[in-house]
Amino acid sequence: PATFIDHQREERCGYPEVIYGLHKSAERILSASREILKLKTNVLISRINQEKANILITEFPDAFYCETAQIAYIGDFIQKFDSKLLIISAGTSDESVVKEAYYSALAFGLKPTLIQDLGVAGLHRLLAYKDELSQADCIIVAAGMEGALPSVVGGLTTAPIIAVPTSVGYGANMEGVTTMMAMLSSCASGLSVVNIDNGFGAAYAALRMIKTFEKK
Amino acid sequence: PATFIDHQREERCGYPEVIYGLHKSAERILSASREILKLKTNVLISRINQEKANILITEFPDAFYCETAQIAYIGDFIQKFDSKLLIISAGTSDESVVKEAYYSALAFGLKPTLIQDLGVAGLHRLLAYKDELSQADCIIVAAGMEGALPSVVGGLTTAPIIAVPTSVGYGANMEGVTTMMAMLSSCASGLSVVNIDNGFGAAYAALRMIKTFEKK
Amino acid sequence: PATFIDHQREERCGYPEVIYGLHKSAERILSASREILKLKTNVLISRINQEKANILITEFPDAFYCETAQIAYIGDFIQKFDSKLLIISAGTSDESVVKEAYYSALAFGLKPTLIQDLGVAGLHRLLAYKDELSQADCIIVAAGMEGALPSVVGGLTTAPIIAVPTSVGYGANMEGVTTMMAMLSSCASGLSVVNIDNGFGAAYAALRMIKTFEKK
Amino acid sequence: PATFIDHQREERCGYPEVIYGLHKSAERILSASREILKLKTNVLISRINQEKANILITEFPDAFYCETAQIAYIGDFIQKFDSKLLIISAGTSDESVVKEAYYSALAFGLKPTLIQDLGVAGLHRLLAYKDELSQADCIIVAAGMEGALPSVVGGLTTAPIIAVPTSVGYGANMEGVTTMMAMLSSCASGLSVVNIDNGFGAAYAALRMIKTFEKK
Amino acid sequence: PATFIDHQREERCGYPEVIYGLHKSAERILSASREILKLKTNVLISRINQEKANILITEFPDAFYCETAQIAYIGDFIQKFDSKLLIISAGTSDESVVKEAYYSALAFGLKPTLIQDLGVAGLHRLLAYKDELSQADCIIVAAGMEGALPSVVGGLTTAPIIAVPTSVGYGANMEGVTTMMAMLSSCASGLSVVNIDNGFGAAYAALRMIKTFEKK
Amino acid sequence: PATFIDHQREERCGYPEVIYGLHKSAERILSASREILKLKTNVLISRINQEKANILITEFPDAFYCETAQIAYIGDFIQKFDSKLLIISAGTSDESVVKEAYYSALAFGLKPTLIQDLGVAGLHRLLAYKDELSQADCIIVAAGMEGALPSVVGGLTTAPIIAVPTSVGYGANMEGVTTMMAMLSSCASGLSVVNIDNGFGAAYAALRMIKTFEKK
Amino acid sequence: PATFIDHQREERCGYPEVIYGLHKSAERILSASREILKLKTNVLISRINQEKANILITEFPDAFYCETAQIAYIGDFIQKFDSKLLIISAGTSDESVVKEAYYSALAFGLKPTLIQDLGVAGLHRLLAYKDELSQADCIIVAAGMEGALPSVVGGLTTAPIIAVPTSVGYGANMEGVTTMMAMLSSCASGLSVVNIDNGFGAAYAALRMIKTFEKK
Amino acid sequence: PATFIDHQREERCGYPEVIYGLHKSAERILSASREILKLKTNVLISRINQEKANILITEFPDAFYCETAQIAYIGDFIQKFDSKLLIISAGTSDESVVKEAYYSALAFGLKPTLIQDLGVAGLHRLLAYKDELSQADCIIVAAGMEGALPSVVGGLTTAPIIAVPTSVGYGANMEGVTTMMAMLSSCASGLSVVNIDNGFGAAYAALRMIKTFEKK
Ligand SMILES: Nc1ncnc2c1ncn2[C@@H]1O[C@H](COP(=O)(O)O)[C@@H](O)[C@H]1O
Ligand SMILES: Nc1ncnc2c1ncn2[C@@H]1O[C@H](COP(=O)(O)O)[C@@H](O)[C@H]1O
Ligand SMILES: Nc1ncnc2c1ncn2[C@@H]1O[C@H](COP(=O)(O)O)[C@@H](O)[C@H]1O
Ligand SMILES: Nc1ncnc2c1ncn2[C@@H]1O[C@H](COP(=O)(O)O)[C@@H](O)[C@H]1O
Ligand SMILES: [Mg+2]
Ligand SMILES: [Mg+2]
Ligand SMILES: [Mg+2]
Ligand SMILES: [Mg+2]
Ligand SMILES: [Mg+2]
Ligand SMILES: [Mg+2]
Ligand SMILES: [Mg+2]
Ligand SMILES: [Mg+2]
Repeated sequence: PATFIDHQREERCGYPEVIYGLHKSAERILSASREILKLKTNVLISRINQEKANILITEFPDAFYCETAQIAYIGDFIQKFDSKLLIISAGTSDESVVKEAYYSALAFGLKPTLIQDLGVAGLHRLLAYKDELSQADCIIVAAGMEGALPSVVGGLTTAPIIAVPTSVGYGANMEGVTTMMAMLSSCASGLSVVNIDNGFGAAYAALRMIKTFEKK
Repeated sequence: PATFIDHQREERCGYPEVIYGLHKSAERILSASREILKLKTNVLISRINQEKANILITEFPDAFYCETAQIAYIGDFIQKFDSKLLIISAGTSDESVVKEAYYSALAFGLKPTLIQDLGVAGLHRLLAYKDELSQADCIIVAAGMEGALPSVVGGLTTAPIIAVPTSVGYGANMEGVTTMMAMLSSCASGLSVVNIDNGFGAAYAALRMIKTFEKK
Repeated sequence: PATFIDHQREERCGYPEVIYGLHKSAERILSASREILKLKTNVLISRINQEKANILITEFPDAFYCETAQIAYIGDFIQKFDSKLLIISAGTSDESVVKEAYYSALAFGLKPTLIQDLGVAGLHRLLAYKDELSQADCIIVAAGMEGALPSVVGGLTTAPIIAVPTSVGYGANMEGVTTMMAMLSSCASGLSVVNIDNGFGAAYAALRMIKTFEKK
Repeated sequence: PATFIDHQREERCGYPEVIYGLHKSAERILSASREILKLKTNVLISRINQEKANILITEFPDAFYCETAQIAYIGDFIQKFDSKLLIISAGTSDESVVKEAYYSALAFGLKPTLIQDLGVAGLHRLLAYKDELSQADCIIVAAGMEGALPSVVGGLTTAPIIAVPTSVGYGANMEGVTTMMAMLSSCASGLSVVNIDNGFGAAYAALRMIKTFEKK
Repeated sequence: PATFIDHQREERCGYPEVIYGLHKSAERILSASREILKLKTNVLISRINQEKANILITEFPDAFYCETAQIAYIGDFIQKFDSKLLIISAGTSDESVVKEAYYSALAFGLKPTLIQDLGVAGLHRLLAYKDELSQADCIIVAAGMEGALPSVVGGLTTAPIIAVPTSVGYGANMEGVTTMMAMLSSCASGLSVVNIDNGFGAAYAALRMIKTFEKK
Repeated sequence: PATFIDHQREERCGYPEVIYGLHKSAERILSASREILKLKTNVLISRINQEKANILITEFPDAFYCETAQIAYIGDFIQKFDSKLLIISAGTSDESVVKEAYYSALAFGLKPTLIQDLGVAGLHRLLAYKDELSQADCIIVAAGMEGALPSVVGGLTTAPIIAVPTSVGYGANMEGVTTMMAMLSSCASGLSVVNIDNGFGAAYAALRMIKTFEKK
Repeated sequence: PATFIDHQREERCGYPEVIYGLHKSAERILSASREILKLKTNVLISRINQEKANILITEFPDAFYCETAQIAYIGDFIQKFDSKLLIISAGTSDESVVKEAYYSALAFGLKPTLIQDLGVAGLHRLLAYKDELSQADCIIVAAGMEGALPSVVGGLTTAPIIAVPTSVGYGANMEGVTTMMAMLSSCASGLSVVNIDNGFGAAYAALRMIKTFEKK
Repeated sequence: PATFIDHQREERCGYPEVIYGLHKSAERILSASREILKLKTNVLISRINQEKANILITEFPDAFYCETAQIAYIGDFIQKFDSKLLIISAGTSDESVVKEAYYSALAFGLKPTLIQDLGVAGLHRLLAYKDELSQADCIIVAAGMEGALPSVVGGLTTAPIIAVPTSVGYGANMEGVTTMMAMLSSCASGLSVVNIDNGFGAAYAALRMIKTFEKK
């Protein structure tokens, strides 16, 4: 068969295998979902477009689907952790990425708050949320273009920061490569970075952190 | 003056300003050190070569200096946090990077353990440390060449993983750019990545996490 | 005429000219196929989409076509060699590439076995096939994203390994360029690499090896 | 002869030809200087190292030379324009670049003020100079690493901003290419950018602006 | 909400927030427009395609829209500044970019003149406009391919020059990256550069300059 | 107006302005054609697709159009030069490029011969045309993939060679960038190279050579 | 300790761990050599310069060292395999790479023949060795610049071909990256490629093949 | 032996094998020179530094050597062709490249004229040589930075133009890669381009042209 589900992933890595839908047919997504649901009570599917989602929903009518986030989720969203996860973005155009992070976090049982459009061209917008920044246990910061927001946030807080470069921009932005390289070169210390548009990965990094430390 | 020390950085970001020595003259490093020591009891200097370190040590004879790590530290190493920080590398050639992470962590008051040369070409070496992996609260994984080690570690543990690409390799490795891009593209979920050879940044990311969660 | 068939290629290189369909019109593919079939009993066409394949099948109704692999084959699949060719992939998403390798190998008269979805994020999946790995005479390893699988396989076996980077991934993956560069930088010794998504080329490299050594 | 001095450049472009010393021998620099001084009363030489400068000074003992800026100037610094040119940098490591801008501006007859080390990791440093920012007629902003400073300045002021990426950083910084690309992708509107480390060019852009508008 | 309008931007940066339409839905564009029009009398929208513009025009039937420039503007075009802004292009193919600059400038209250198709392959075309060049207070120069036009203009005038690389070209042009890099490497001194195809940004840079200097 | 036809181009550069259709609307192409035909008896249009060509042909029913080459020509093809121009390609997939060169050459009055599919994987195909190679006065060599053909031709002949990289290939071929870079790095001396897929430019380079030398 | 020797590598991968000397101090190389020699009778060290080799030879006076190849070997060269390994290069400048391959092959117990300077600019040189080509069981082909040689060899033989790009060239060659990308894009089928200048890896790929097939 | 001289190259390609000295030892250069001089009366060596040249001159005291051009020549410079080869450069800094072209041309028996420092920042310098441009049979145009000069020359003349990008510049110039890409993207038709700094290759391209056409 084309798929070999990793049924022990939750035990080892903290969460069951997530289906990456981008390069898969609806049929492959469906059979992988059924396979995972044999042993688990829910399944998360990332990068699934409306067309494939429609097919999924035919079989699983209660499935959650967000087109902006390209995320589907079969099962209940149940909060399992108390740490405060703050997700912020630089602009409205980053919406799909922060929503991927937000719904992934919900699926993981985390407690996320989402605040959008706080880019550095209008600093007062970010500064209006100083309390949220200082109370957060973990901050996911998504930005496109020059990717300056995580650096500024990094200079304002002690919390762990996961920077998500987005592919928002054009020309010299190189479909987010410039943003990513800029974030990796940040003058603010202790930022760490995930792949371009990888809201899912950012939420997972938060899960690793929160699960490990809350467990203690 | 050329330098404007950020004296509130510890309050905001969890650690005082660290001097980045690479593009600075010994003189600039010295004056910045003196400036920081007016208000703080210790100062960390990264990317400082032997020649500049010698000048520093003339004025501060008790300063710690590790040439492999290119790190100098004036002050006492005092452990302030209990979480287990595991630092591992893929090969002996990554030594300078993991030592930069190690001594930075010591300076931050963290409790690091360093295990080197666990690359995936001989998997049994990593598997011999399964206990250390599963007990760690945070894992820094440095690797050069194709940068596969963090993916494998990511598939074995729940702990937060900070991947550090190193510039070890040649040709297609592109001085670590390939390693970095590979780590950002990892099939293991929830890794986050810092700049090439940035052992310091990895340790700082660990500090943000540990300081935030231990404080709770 | 636009096409000059190299009728001696089998004698020189071990297999007749294969038609690369990507940039050719259906008409050009058809006339080249007819030209080759004047002197040979079969013809292999790679990178041919469904639409062009339909036209081909109108003229050659017995032709084999696999849309996933984008491969067409006119003639019989006849096994000519006994060596064990193992083809493995890291994920379900790599399916089109390993199927291109698989059907090319069949057309070449090789004896391929295909096992999919053995990526390093769940190492036990690969380790479950240790016997297959150690008995193989040649291993084709396809992977996308960070391309770690060939390094791990390289550390487990003596057999020749042909690594195939796939364009599965996004962002820092750079449509497979990162995967390819990573495989070329592998810490495991003696891997060799073919072009991104080049399942056909990997199978041909296996053919060169097996034909040369079995002939002895 | 190897050099063809453009004696009308001042009339056309606002300033006589400047000698770009990087790829020229001391001898070529000397003969070009003599040639320019036949018709003009001063000459500016950029990218000239200490060794070549020493030879220049033997012939022109009153020449000004700044090693940090790699700039030599034969003649008097005479202020000709009243507009306020503010030059700021993100870090001490950018010193050579802002000094190249500063001394070029002095040679051009501009009225520059230089303030260093105002990087976004400690925003209060920049905000302490809000008055200088709002009173400036033109602002040159130099930064390395992720190059976020011009975006933040761009969000705080109406003045024209010339962003200068510096090659300060390592790894993903790509010797300033990332910084440059980031600045060109800025979310703040109306920034314009010059080449990496091109303090001279930034000052010249200021000269074009100030000379044109003061003349009116 | 997904959008957080920066209502103080005009006071700080000289012009109200402009809506960047490329990655936004028609609905997001509409709600942001309404939000801005609560406090301002006009709104500028860049990178908005015909389809989204149609929806906008349904609500704001008097809105201006230029498909070539992908610009929409709700409000009156009122000239507020007297400085001469000259906008020139190298070829007919650059039309969309210079029109973006032209209509942005009109919306900003500037006084732009547009002359197209003056590329260096037929120098007499540019030289026919020597008067316009020498009388301009600011020149925006757009070019694709090798981007030579700004260098030639830079050698003919004292005025400030804002170079706009366009994505016109193919192959080695790299969708305008080559043009942009070439402009940044210009042998003519004092050019400054904006992002590829960024006519809007060039006009904004002109606004910063003209507003600052006319105000004096 | 958007277009400023360079009516003296033939006198200066040997051939009237050619309309580059890729980024132009049918309407712009038509008006430029009419403008050129006011003073010249024919006009060449490159990179014009079938749809735009249809509109052109409505007005100029005698126009020549080749969809493969994306070339339109209004006027008569009249041979004006006697030198032998040989155009060869490595594969059938390069057809559009060599046809662009071929029809451009015809329009220029040159005497081209076209031989396709002589790639180095079957050297005897090229060697079968040794006479044509040695009698040619100028050779255009188009190849995609690794671009080896010009090097081999360069080692067999004295004639001037214009190498045309094509975008035929995938993955590591980088849409022809690899081919182009390889040709520029050729071990055969005295090759010169034009842009990727630039059959038109190659023919024009031949025109410059032949026109200059036949005129003598 | 910094080094964790993989003592089972020979059993798993066909040859003991080889010490990669490039980023290691002489001291680290020495201690790793001693560690390996505890269990094995010989040790191979790659990328070791003259200075480090001198220190090695002080302790192991019988060690073999070739400065051109940057290879040291402690132990006896004993032939263990009968297959014919042909190593060829395009030019004299590739000497260091083919010698790295040659001495690695000798250390592995293979039977290599080395023929240099057979580049495609003078095809008769390669054709003079047609017998050697057709009798070889495996061919390593090293070339720099445009890397055309493996394609030509690939079109002449059935044997497995391992292409080694070298960093010989300048400018567009990009320190061998162009060569590598070109080889991966070869029009000849079934070539596989190793890293730039990786003579060692090519020999190891030959070892995997020969060891596996001779064992049968 | 490491070197296999191609003694028939003059008969095939118009000039005997030239020794590329960059990656060769003095010893290899010497033995290749001796080998060529067995059958020919002169030998050209490119990219040979002063140190290696000194050793060459010890054996061949009459050898010509130009350090700027890094060219050595053993034999007499004898003019064999009458066509006018014009070599021009944009700046003094391009001197080494145009001198490489100049001395190569002399060695080839061509009749070159060299005019330096005609860059587009001061157009009148080029226009002062309009007669030389219009009388030339072939023009080599070297430029660094943005590489605009060939485009301007291309718009002024009918003669064949060989553009040579030089590595003069910094930052965005990417060591000449930007210049090269820009030249390949020129808006002037019919330019052809050689590798970065490849003055030798440009002269050889001129030789191919002139030899072929003068022979007729
Ligand atoms: N020339 C070489 N090129 C690439 N890899 C090598 C080379 N020589 C040895 N290696 C491998 O590189 C790895 C280096 O890891 P380490 O020496 O621990 O940094 C080991 O697995 C070696 O077997
Ligand atoms: N949005 C995502 N980005 C990156 N990786 C993902 C994403 N979603 C799932 N994955 C992981 O990607 C891998 C895909 O492998 P496969 O689905 O077998 O091709 C699995 O390990 C998934 O857990
Ligand atoms: N196929 C082609 N490739 C490159 N340049 C071309 C081509 N066809 C025409 N050109 C030239 O490209 C320039 C285009 O400028 P414009 O048409 O005004 O945008 C003109 O100078 C044309 O002569
Ligand atoms: N620091 C600098 N950066 C860029 N261009 C410069 C610099 N200094 C001078 N230039 C210009 O670079 C060109 C160099 O040409 P040349 O000196 O003839 O090689 C001249 O037009 C100078 O005005
Ligand atoms: Mg916004
Ligand atoms: Mg090791
Ligand atoms: Mg899977
Ligand atoms: Mg600082
Ligand atoms: Mg035009
Ligand atoms: Mg063919
Ligand atoms: Mg040779
Ligand atoms: Mg000059």
